[in-house]
Parts: sequence; structure tokens; C-alpha cells
Amino acid sequence: MPESPIRKLVPYAEEAKKRGVKVFHLNIGQPDIATPKVALDAVKNNDISVLSYARSEGSEEYRKKLSAYYRKNDIDVTEKDIIITTGGSEALLFTLGSITDFGDEIIIPEPFYANYNGFSVANGIKVVPIVSSIDNDFALPPIENFEALITEKTKAILICNPGNPTGYLYSKSELIKLKELALKHNLFLIADEVYREFVYDGVKHHSIMSLDGLEENAIVIDSVSKRYSMCGARIGCIVSKNKALIGTALKYAQARLSSPSYALLASEAALETPQSYFDKVIEEYDERRQLLISELEKIDNLKVSKPKGAFYCMAELPVKDADKFAQWMLEKFSDKGETVMVAPASGFYSTEGSGKNQIRIAYVLNKESLIRSVELLKLALEQYPD
Amino acid sequence: MPESPIRKLVPYAEEAKKRGVKVFHLNIGQPDIATPKVALDAVKNNDISVLSYARSEGSEEYRKKLSAYYRKNDIDVTEKDIIITTGGSEALLFTLGSITDFGDEIIIPEPFYANYNGFSVANGIKVVPIVSSIDNDFALPPIENFEALITEKTKAILICNPGNPTGYLYSKSELIKLKELALKHNLFLIADEVYREFVYDGVKHHSIMSLDGLEENAIVIDSVSKRYSMCGARIGCIVSKNKALIGTALKYAQARLSSPSYALLASEAALETPQSYFDKVIEEYDERRQLLISELEKIDNLKVSKPKGAFYCMAELPVKDADKFAQWMLEKFSDKGETVMVAPASGFYSTEGSGKNQIRIAYVLNKESLIRSVELLKLALEQYPD
Repeated sequence: MPESPIRKLVPYAEEAKKRGVKVFHLNIGQPDIATPKVALDAVKNNDISVLSYARSEGSEEYRKKLSAYYRKNDIDVTEKDIIITTGGSEALLFTLGSITDFGDEIIIPEPFYANYNGFSVANGIKVVPIVSSIDNDFALPPIENFEALITEKTKAILICNPGNPTGYLYSKSELIKLKELALKHNLFLIADEVYREFVYDGVKHHSIMSLDGLEENAIVIDSVSKRYSMCGARIGCIVSKNKALIGTALKYAQARLSSPSYALLASEAALETPQSYFDKVIEEYDERRQLLISELEKIDNLKVSKPKGAFYCMAELPVKDADKFAQWMLEKFSDKGETVMVAPASGFYSTEGSGKNQIRIAYVLNKESLIRSVELLKLALEQYPD
Repeated sequence: MPESPIRKLVPYAEEAKKRGVKVFHLNIGQPDIATPKVALDAVKNNDISVLSYARSEGSEEYRKKLSAYYRKNDIDVTEKDIIITTGGSEALLFTLGSITDFGDEIIIPEPFYANYNGFSVANGIKVVPIVSSIDNDFALPPIENFEALITEKTKAILICNPGNPTGYLYSKSELIKLKELALKHNLFLIADEVYREFVYDGVKHHSIMSLDGLEENAIVIDSVSKRYSMCGARIGCIVSKNKALIGTALKYAQARLSSPSYALLASEAALETPQSYFDKVIEEYDERRQLLISELEKIDNLKVSKPKGAFYCMAELPVKDADKFAQWMLEKFSDKGETVMVAPASGFYSTEGSGKNQIRIAYVLNKESLIRSVELLKLALEQYPD
């Protein structure tokens, strides 16, 4: 199993804190947003006396309610097309396990969520990266580039939409290109859509599940973690009309018996979250996003991609090695007893040496902290000796 | 992924219920025992407002408290020797992933917990079974039989102690034989000890972690599921002094981010469960065990193994095919509108054709229901046409 460059920085952050330095965390995907009250209350007011196993694939009631949520989002599925999992992580693990054999390949546009690599290694499969560029905000690479990478071992293309770490939102026409390629070569198209709600500038999110003709090839990975700021619940799901995939994933689910029962209570209740909650949360993220981008753009020689979704943005720094720079900010730099931790992007690339001067910034801090964090980043770049 | 014979019976049980037949479930490992109040209350009284990720390996505080629990059980470990997992299932999945490569082998005495096979398949490794016999209550097979199966691909021996499905409790001298073999061939000895507390007849449970000299080779799989009747929590752990194993398992834990936060609250609080709770629960299980055995022994031509631990027992029926018989009891048999569901043992054997006339009975029902269940089994055997 590979270790992520972010994890490698954690001891340096801990050391900085021991020295009394305040560290602003732009490195993590843990939102500071409150979980909906309806979900918290469902757990507080539970009347469980024997904390029993839940049904391996999730209760019929929860899956029925979930399918109503999907139908509201132009995803026409029933409870039979859903397997509840222990987080989006497990959804991906079961999906990869179900559709690949040892030595198979999946194609993923990079930069990509670092754990995609970990789950692939755990399943004995090979990630074939396809580079996307900060110069067009990490738009879909030319479809010919995908096609050139397809071998007889290729089983799927995996995208994250909106993207972690890029914040890129694929357009419908980009998704249609992927669909046509998947159908032509009989590949699965897997989309991690856990940030579905977090889109800005009035742009609409399109799910791969709403693409006509892709029914047998489309697999959606989902999770309550970001949607309801419930990262600690560990509830997600696999959504697909492909019955063979759902059948195999069910066997994986049965082998691990059950998802966590308290978290299932919270997740089912979370479906009752009022729209006003999302309106407020999305407004907050959007304000942070705009603030962050405008502050970052003030820094000389820094290139920033404008995210259309999720709560991350990628920036290219005027340094050779962002891993070393990020470590230096924790080890050697501080201003008025404060510093900032960012995620070096090297962990999001699987092509050796790619993204060495890039970082990912998560806008999961309040606006005041964001402004100060970017100021610290600016000062650090000015003082960085390399 | 293989499908268990128990799962195959579920639709027949559902059909029986639809016909209005009451089904006594002797087939499952879900106890009817109440979860300790201290654990339930910790969740009811939680003050979480943002349901955040927990630390991937579990909080230091929880692991410190857990290590105190282990020390009380003659297992001398610290928080550094523990990785918290999402159930015992995940503990085993991470352990197998950490110590094996594709195509490696692990030796398991059979009958064994069916999901060991599923987790092995998921990790691309081969289960090499070694047969144990109902005639000596499934005691450890001769150690030469283990040794004869060791190849250069063998990475570990896996035992369940006390055993599911056998109820067998390994003696200290049996464990020492396994230790010597593991050391001689540099194998891991993995023990699933989730039923540690459930031992009867005044016999003591010995952990493989308390065997001198095995420190680098011993890995314990544990879980709160059975101990505190918290199967739905999905919290377990890996315990080992082997730092390389713990380091690799940590990477698996980081890839899936976190165990479920509410369940962690409950599990940490459960460590405060008073001894009186266990005394009462063990007394209850012991009474059921003795009652079940004496009732079963009244049935002609039925052979029953006497369990010393856990809450299962194995029985050999005077039928050719227990899978068919179990299905027949659900499909065709009832007495006064009642029938019984048992677990055919074929799913606990990996040697084709083994255990065909055996079943596993879980004594997770109250005494009255147990008596009636065995009566139903007796009547069914009398009426079974095959």
C-alpha cells in the first residue's frame, strides 16, 4: 500500500503545534459545516436496546427513500439498483473487486483522489493515469488519449465529478464522449459523485446514470460524508442498473455482514434535510471559493484553477517541489506564530514526477481563516529559500 | 465471491413466513442479549454537531483503554499494537491484505467461519483447509497434518478460538504446538478471538498473544460485536506486536479514512461495562448450552459436539444432505404452524463434500424457544422422507 504525501506531513504539523505554532489546515476534506439536525436527532433519540446487524445491502426502506432522492436528481433507479456500503471507500472497493481480476487495469484522469490508488492496489489492479491540465482547469483530456490507453486488460474508466482534487465539473458533452467510448469498448464508466450538490455559477451537475444507453455500463459511487457533513458516519452506496455488478457487490457486502447501524439511522434521517440547509451550505462554500480564488490570484507567479464544484482547488506554485515547500512551511516557517498546511499534489498523480509544483487547497475553513491562510502562503513563498 | 448455503436458504425462510409459519432462527450469530446500557447511553447522550472522521487507526484514548482491557486478559500490549477497524471483518481483510500477495496460501482448520473464504477470495489468496472432526469435538488436528500442507506460498495459519462454528476452545498445549510450527516455518498465527469471554465449565481462554516467543508472528482479530452484543456497531481491531504488520494495516486503515464515529463512542464506553453484565450473560449462554445439548442428545442417531465456548454447536444429522434437509424444513415441514431454520455446515467446509450431514446451531434464543426448536428438529427428522 502506498503512503500519501499528505500523511507524510502529519508529523511535521504535530511538531509545529508542539512548538506552539497555530496551523491552518487547508489540507483536509473534513468540512467545518454542521451536520443536519434531523440526522443528529435521529441518533440521539434512538430506542435501540440490542445493537443488531443491519441488512447487508441496507434496509429496503432506506434504499427506497434513497431511490426517491436519486429520482429527484434525474437518476432513475429503484431500491434494487442500490447497495448500501460503509462509506464511499467501501463502495469503490466492492466495485473494483466485482468488476476486475488480478492484473486488470482502470483508466483514471489525473490528478485523482489518492485513495483510488490504494483501493486499486488492495484489489491487485493497475491504475493507468491520463494527464489533465491545470491550464484548462483539468477538463476532460481528448478522448483519443483515453482510447490510446485501452488494452484487453482495461475494465473501466473512473472519474470523480465534481472532482477531488480538481474541483472540475464535467459537462454533459464530455460525459457523452466518455459514454461512447465505454460502449465502444464495453468498459464500465464509474463516477464518484459524492460532491454532486456542490456546484457553483449556476452550472448543473450531470450524473452518468442519466445518460441514455449507458445503463449496463454506468456505476455511481456515492456517500453521505460530504453531502450532509457526516464524514464520520461511514455510509455510502453503489448505484447501478447492471444486475450482475449489483449481485457480486452484494456478496462482498454479505461477507462483511453489515454497515454501521447508528450511522444508518442518521443517514436515513438525513434524507429529510430541508433544501434551506443546502442553500445555505452551498452559498457559504461559493463565497469561500470566490474569496479564495481572488486572494490566491494576488500572489505573483501562482497559477490557480477555478473550481466549478466540490470544495477544492488546485494551484501551481513558483517552487520546484511542493512536497518540500509544504514541509518547510510546517518545519521552518511561521508568521506571528501561525502557519498553513496544504496538500502537495504529487499524491494525486500516479505518473512519476507529475504535479510536483502543485498543491490542493480545501476551502473547508471559514472566510477569515481562509484570508489569513492565503496571506501565510504568500509570505511563505516570499521567504522560501529554494 | 462464493455464496454461503445459509444465504441460499433465506428466500425459503421468507416464503415460509409469508405462508404464516413461525420460523425459529438457530441459523444466525445475532445474539438476543441486550447491549450494555453504558454503551447505548454514550450514543444517546452524545454532543456531536459535526460528525467528523475519526482517526484512521482509532483515537489514542480508545486504544489506550483497549490495551488496559487486554492486559487484564493476559495480553501485554500498548496502544501502538492496536489498529481499530470497522468490525472484525475489516480486521481480517486488512490482515490478509497486509501479509499476503496474490496466490499465497493460508491454512485453516475446517469447519471454519464461512466469511474467511470470502475475505481470502477478495484478497486473491487460497484457503488450504485441514479437516477437524466432530468425533473429538473439533480439537486441533495432529500438527503433522498442518506441516504436511505448508508450501513456500503459505503465509499464515488462521484459527478461531473459541470457534465459530465449532464452539471448540483450544487448550494451551494445542496453542503451543501451533506456536512451534509457526516459528519453525516463519508463519503468522492469526487467531480470531472475538468470543474470548464466552467460555464455560470453568475452563480458561488462552490468547495466542500470551505465548512467549510468538510476539512477531501472532495477530489477533477482535471485535465488540459479540462481547457486548453490539453486532451493528461494526468496530473491531487488529492486535499485534509485529510493527511491520501494524504499519501496513495502518495504510489500509488510512485508505478507508475512518471507522464509524458513533460506534466508536459506543465501543469506548462499552469498556466500562460492569463484570456483573458478563456474569449474567455467560450464565445465560451456559444454561442454554447445557439445555440445548441435553435436548439434542435425546434425538436418535444425532451426534452432537459439546462446545466449550462461543455460542454455537455442531451436530451431525441422520440425513445424507443437510442443505436439502434444512431447505425441506422451511419449504415443506411445519408443526402447529412452526418450523426451524438451521445453518447447513457445508458452507463451513472448503473441502468439497465435507460436512454434508452436519449443521450449526446458534444458541442465541431464549430457553423456551430453544426447547421448542429442538422439538421441531426432532419431528422434522422423523417426518423427513429422504
